Amino acid sequence: MKQLKADLRQFTKDRNWEQFHSPKNLAMALSVEVAELVEIFQWKTGDEKLTSSEYLNLRDEIGDIQIYLTMLADKFNLCPIEMAKAKLEKNKIKHPIDDNKFNKSI
Amino acid sequence: MKQLKADLRQFTKDRNWEQFHSPKNLAMALSVEVAELVEIFQWKTGDEKLTSSEYLNLRDEIGDIQIYLTMLADKFNLCPIEMAKAKLEKNKIKHPIDDNKFNKSI
Amino acid sequence: MKQLKADLRQFTKDRNWEQFHSPKNLAMALSVEVAELVEIFQWKTGDEKLTSSEYLNLRDEIGDIQIYLTMLADKFNLCPIEMAKAKLEKNKIKHPIDDNKFNKSI
Amino acid sequence: MKQLKADLRQFTKDRNWEQFHSPKNLAMALSVEVAELVEIFQWKTGDEKLTSSEYLNLRDEIGDIQIYLTMLADKFNLCPIEMAKAKLEKNKIKHPIDDNKFNKSI
Repeated sequence: MKQLKADLRQFTKDRNWEQFHSPKNLAMALSVEVAELVEIFQWKTGDEKLTSSEYLNLRDEIGDIQIYLTMLADKFNLCPIEMAKAKLEKNKIKHPIDDNKFNKSI
Repeated sequence: MKQLKADLRQFTKDRNWEQFHSPKNLAMALSVEVAELVEIFQWKTGDEKLTSSEYLNLRDEIGDIQIYLTMLADKFNLCPIEMAKAKLEKNKIKHPIDDNKFNKSI
Repeated sequence: MKQLKADLRQFTKDRNWEQFHSPKNLAMALSVEVAELVEIFQWKTGDEKLTSSEYLNLRDEIGDIQIYLTMLADKFNLCPIEMAKAKLEKNKIKHPIDDNKFNKSI
Repeated sequence: MKQLKADLRQFTKDRNWEQFHSPKNLAMALSVEVAELVEIFQWKTGDEKLTSSEYLNLRDEIGDIQIYLTMLADKFNLCPIEMAKAKLEKNKIKHPIDDNKFNKSI
């Protein structure tokens, strides 16, 4: 993750794209990438497999989402992995193991 | 990341939530979390700062997005960080350093 | 629709909200409202019914989406209903009746 | 709107697509179309105009969003325009004219 952050900073700097990467714009870009991922599963029924082209597309979309999430978090000096760990601890308290019948969402 | 994946698997298993976590449902959940992040920046103007409550909210939303992205990737035995690195290499080829005036998006 | 447009203009003007309603911000707001609608169906299985509180929520979210869509279209002097009719004609050509096995999306 | 509903029902029936159009799937499709609209405005700065190709794209996306919103609402025998009117009345009560400094969102 540390390496990814450094690489993304360099990538953005080399192209002079800092001007476009406001947190607001990065949040929008993230939502667009997530929709491209949703599109893959949009009409799938329960047990339907991905085609190989959909699978390659999935790999790219997961990459794009991780890229924009990391860039956005980096704007606030945050690490997404650390945020996930902290949120998971909160979720464990919010949804105790024996009392989770009706709350499926984190 | 390896630790996060293991923790998420255990969290899901302990609550018997595997039944809800189809890739399709995880993609939808991801899009909902991203929208909650977009909501933070929705009405902000260029240089407007986050309030401290918005900042705490941002930390949680980044965590939630990383959690669902990791869960979804794990369904396909993929690591989001590895996918981001691979996608970044593709982006470097797609957007060479000297030829990027009109293509701001990755 | 004509009445709705006029009412929305008046609503926005009375509150001095034109300053926030750039097309970009309205598009973001629309995406947030759609995610709130997606949230209702997120963990539903095929034949699961909405609860009455989910149904009331659905009515509000459909209303919010129509409101923001109308506001955004109005910024460009467009009518969403007219755009839908025009797009439906294009879809009919794109997806002829006898040749639609693999293309479910419009 | 009544005509649009009838046309959409016929369009779906002619292609035997009712099987794909669960409310859940329609909500996902709606979110994908909205992201395509967000994409148009994603990197725009305050006063930047749309190109003519972006404008044509905008017209299509507004049409697609209205189509899926109408289809989804129709699944519950609801009219999106009526829902918008009802929600606007609620918004007027929630945001009285003189007390709206800090609440920009509906």
